[in-house]
Order: sequence, then structure tokens, then C-alpha cells
Amino acid sequence: MTKTSTERTGSMVVVIPALTEKQRNAITAAAGEEGWQISFFDSEAEAGEAAETAEILFSTSPELAGRAKKLRWQCTPYAGTDLFYPGVFASPDAVLTNSSGAYGVTIAEHILMVTLELLRRQQEYTEITRRREWERKLPVRSVCGSRIVLLGTGDIGQEAARRLRAFRPASLKGVNTTGSNPDGLFDSCIPVEDLAGLLPETDILIMSLPGTKKARHILDEEKMRLLPDGAVIVNVGRGSSINEGALEQELRAGRLSAALDVFETEPLPQDSTLWDCPHLLVTPHAAGNMTLPYTVEKIVDLFLENFRRYCAGDPLLRRVDLERGY
Amino acid sequence: MTKTSTERTGSMVVVIPALTEKQRNAITAAAGEEGWQISFFDSEAEAGEAAETAEILFSTSPELAGRAKKLRWQCTPYAGTDLFYPGVFASPDAVLTNSSGAYGVTIAEHILMVTLELLRRQQEYTEITRRREWERKLPVRSVCGSRIVLLGTGDIGQEAARRLRAFRPASLKGVNTTGSNPDGLFDSCIPVEDLAGLLPETDILIMSLPGTKKARHILDEEKMRLLPDGAVIVNVGRGSSINEGALEQELRAGRLSAALDVFETEPLPQDSTLWDCPHLLVTPHAAGNMTLPYTVEKIVDLFLENFRRYCAGDPLLRRVDLERGY
Repeated sequence: MTKTSTERTGSMVVVIPALTEKQRNAITAAAGEEGWQISFFDSEAEAGEAAETAEILFSTSPELAGRAKKLRWQCTPYAGTDLFYPGVFASPDAVLTNSSGAYGVTIAEHILMVTLELLRRQQEYTEITRRREWERKLPVRSVCGSRIVLLGTGDIGQEAARRLRAFRPASLKGVNTTGSNPDGLFDSCIPVEDLAGLLPETDILIMSLPGTKKARHILDEEKMRLLPDGAVIVNVGRGSSINEGALEQELRAGRLSAALDVFETEPLPQDSTLWDCPHLLVTPHAAGNMTLPYTVEKIVDLFLENFRRYCAGDPLLRRVDLERGY
Repeated sequence: MTKTSTERTGSMVVVIPALTEKQRNAITAAAGEEGWQISFFDSEAEAGEAAETAEILFSTSPELAGRAKKLRWQCTPYAGTDLFYPGVFASPDAVLTNSSGAYGVTIAEHILMVTLELLRRQQEYTEITRRREWERKLPVRSVCGSRIVLLGTGDIGQEAARRLRAFRPASLKGVNTTGSNPDGLFDSCIPVEDLAGLLPETDILIMSLPGTKKARHILDEEKMRLLPDGAVIVNVGRGSSINEGALEQELRAGRLSAALDVFETEPLPQDSTLWDCPHLLVTPHAAGNMTLPYTVEKIVDLFLENFRRYCAGDPLLRRVDLERGY
């Protein structure tokens, strides 16, 4: 634990082990300029006591939110906030902001990677080369000429769209709550109520929805059936968006293929039949995370931007509506 | 074998099993309009006799080139022409064209896939999920912010550059024979003589060179050493461009990582130590091929374009210089 004391009564508690020393120093300097007391911890357990008197928390932890009676603002370094249900805060004055905008780059790169792996049958090639065989004629498919739908057009969907566009898809459509087209990145966007109409013309469906009640099983058995044979599903949002049982049936039938980074239950249980389901590429919720230095830098930038606003009395950006869930 | 006879004396022999019926019909129709006799075969062996009197060959085969005494033009559906050495043609009048331009899309998608797999440690994640483990914190890297060098800026390098640009690399530079910058796709291009100066500032090196004498071991032990620690090498051109023994040492030392689709000896021998070399992603010369329908369509389009030029007496496009090797 590093501690820097200053004159101001307000205190800030930071629990983000992934921070580099340089990043800790940048936060410390910003806090110091404004006269804040700041403490860094490497775990929730260590931070518990300090959190009780903190005015600002920079942490993923809903448990600390429940102990921080003087809290005014918690910034979670994650984009997803489904662990923060209404009533989670001990303090009635607390607001939550997330770090939406920090994960688009890393998750978009994951999306492109797994989409190409599915289309180009890379899992089969892994098996072939594992056997030291020189089989090289598997028919493959291409992003070029494919009809792509992004279900979820936030930071992740937008960053994916920017990259997918360069692969010359036949179409690139977005689905979101309002039907608006962010930065004109998509050929068109439709409201989520009209999703079913779009699915029969979807070769690649990319899902990056938050874990809200409204999104639960948005891809259910019925909607899945609307997808054409051979369609590819990529989910990097939340596992709850897909009826996994129905999807597994489609995958085992060889009708669809999918890359799932998120699951209804995480960690995916050892005895889950999804682990060796054909036509399924499993990654262990690794698309985002703070495993890319760029992501952590961006998280710190976004926090410092909001910290300055907080000190100036300006409204915070990326504020989360706990009822809505994002 | 399908045969369509017409009035003209000239005959055309096509040996491309990957053609669809629709594509055969399109070629037959084009030949018919010009009064050509056309024969399709599924193998070289079957085509041998017909090739002896053919004026046009549409085939990958240097053996048929050696039998076709009346040949004026052979179009190979491949981009690489290293099997066609000077003197391969039985006919002194024969010219060779290739299908450069047909493989850029599929190979660029391969390049993006394997580059991301290396940066995001996807081979390790494959091992992790094979053990049904939920390890998700491996540090990863990103195309975003990387310094990329494309060694070879033909169709493949250009299509790769278009896609890589959308991932926001720190820089995107090309290396080719002249130093010219095709379509301004690169930040800058340098002549291949200056390659060594660029390597110390190269995070990702993408090689798509033809199998020429000049390109042999262009990445030798000495030049490899110039790459910074952690650099990533992707080779989709020809295996002869890399000193494989030197590369294997760097990979086993954990200093570099690589994705090789091509090898000094193909098929890669069963007892090659490259099969299980760490930090190496092996694919069995599968990046290109006629395994993507778009590729075959493009091959036919390019052939028909040249066939019309041939009939009109115009110079053929994509003509190969057998001495130069591309």
C-alpha cells in the first residue's frame, strides 16, 4: 500500500492491481493537485476499512460499495456493471460510472480474430497440424461479402464495425435500443424490437449487449431458428443474452457455429457440455479484461477526466443507471 | 469431361477441378463466342493428350506446359509461379500469366487472423480451454499502436494493409523492389535494399514475397536479430524467404513469435521440429488456395478478361517474367 496524505478531508480509495507505477503516480498527482487523500490497495480485503470513509472508490467491487457509507462516486474500471444492482450502495448519495470506451479496441480485435477463426475453420486446422498432417483444402468462408449484424452498437460494436468495414462485407447493420446510427458507422441501424426481421439475412451476428433484464435470452430458440444455415454467432457481451441450451442444439446439429467468450454461468463449469461442443470456439471471458496495456491506460484516462469533472462540480460522464443496468 | 466443339481451329484446355458448373458454363460461353474448341479436365493425367494440341492452357501444371507444343498462352490459376522455370514450355511462343489479384482477400483475412492469434496468445488459450480451465489473465498485445512492416506490397500486401489500417497501427510501412507506395496505402515504402534499417522498428513483419532467387533467405539470421524482442513474423509468401533454422532458434528462445503458412520444404516433413516449436503457429499452406468461392470467381474473371484481350490481339495482363520469377 502506498499512501499520500494531503490537506483535504475527502479520501479516494483505488483497488486496481493492474495499474502500473506510472499510472499510480498519475492518479496520485491528480489527486494531490486537488488536495485529496489517496490510498491504493491490491485487493478488496485490504481495502475494506479504508473504503468505509472513502468519498471516491475506483474499484470493480460491489462489496466495497456496500461498506462505503460516505461514498459519493464509484468508478468501476469494467464496462459491465451487472454486479451493481439497485440498493448495492451503502451511501444514498453514491453514483456509479463505468469505463465504457476502454475495452472497444481489445474486444474488437478479439471479435475479428474469432470471426475469422470460425469462417476459416481454424479449430480444424489446429487439429490437423496437431496430427502433423498436411490437409489444406478445407472450404473456407470470408468476411468479404458477408451480411453482418452487430447486436449492440456501443463502444465495442462501433470499434468492431470500423474494423469489419475494411474487410468489405456485403452489409453492416446495427441493432440497438433507439435505431440510431452512431457516427454513421453502419449501413443502417434498427431498434431491437425489429431484430427478428433482420436475422434471416444475417451471416455473422456479433453480440455485445450488457447483462440487463431486457437483453436476457434475446437470442432464444425461436430467434436462433431465423438465422440462415451456416450463420456465425459471436458473443462478447454477457452469457445471459443467449439461450445456451438452444444454441448447443444448433451447434451439435452443425447448422450454426459460434464463438462464445461469455456464458450463462461463469466460470463455465468443468462438466459443461459446451467445452467440447462441435462448431463452438470457447474463450474464458478473455476478450476484454485489463490484459492489454492500452485498456488500462484508457481506464485511467477516463477516470482522470471524470475526476476533474467531479472536482469542478460538473456532471460525471459514463454514469450508470442501476435500474436500466448500463 | 465436357466438350464443346465449334468451327475455330484453336483449342483451349482447362484443368481446374475447383470450378463450379456455372463457372465452366461462363468459360464455355466466352470460348464459344470466339469460336474456340474447349475441353475441361479434372486432372493433369486426363488432360495430357488434349494439351499437346492446345493453344491455350488454363492450368497450374508445368508438366502440361512441357507437353503443349502448340501453346501460345498458359494462365495459371495460382498467384505463385515458382514451378515455371525458364525452359519449362515445349512451345517457344508460349507466354505465362498468373492469377495475381485473386488471393488478396483470402490471404489478407488469414494474415489478420494469425496476427491476432499471436498477439492475443490464442494458442495458449486453446490449451487452457482444452483442459477446461478458466485462466483468463494472460497479458495480450494489440495491432493498435503496433509498428507494422509489409515485406511485399503486391495484391496480398495491399489487401492486408487496407484491413490493418482499420486497426489503428502506429505505422504501416511497405518494402518492395522500387520503394513506390501503391495507392498510397502505406505511410511510406522503401526499397528492399534498405530493409535492415527498418527492422529494429518493426513490431509486426508480414511477408508475402514470391519464391524468387532474390528473395531467398531475405530474412536470414543477421536480419532476424535486428527485430526487437517480442516481434511477430507472419509469412504467407514462400518458405524460401526465411532461414527456418535461424527462426526456430529465435522462437525456441522465446524472443520472437511467428505464424508460418509456407515452409522451405512442403509438405512440412512429419519429423520436422517446427511442428511443436513454441511461439510458432503452423498452417499447412492454407492461407490462399482455391478454398474460398470468391477466389475462384476472381480467377475466372481475370482469365476471361485476358481471354478477351488474347482474342483481340491486345497484350495480356499479369504476364510472368520467367527469369524474374513473378
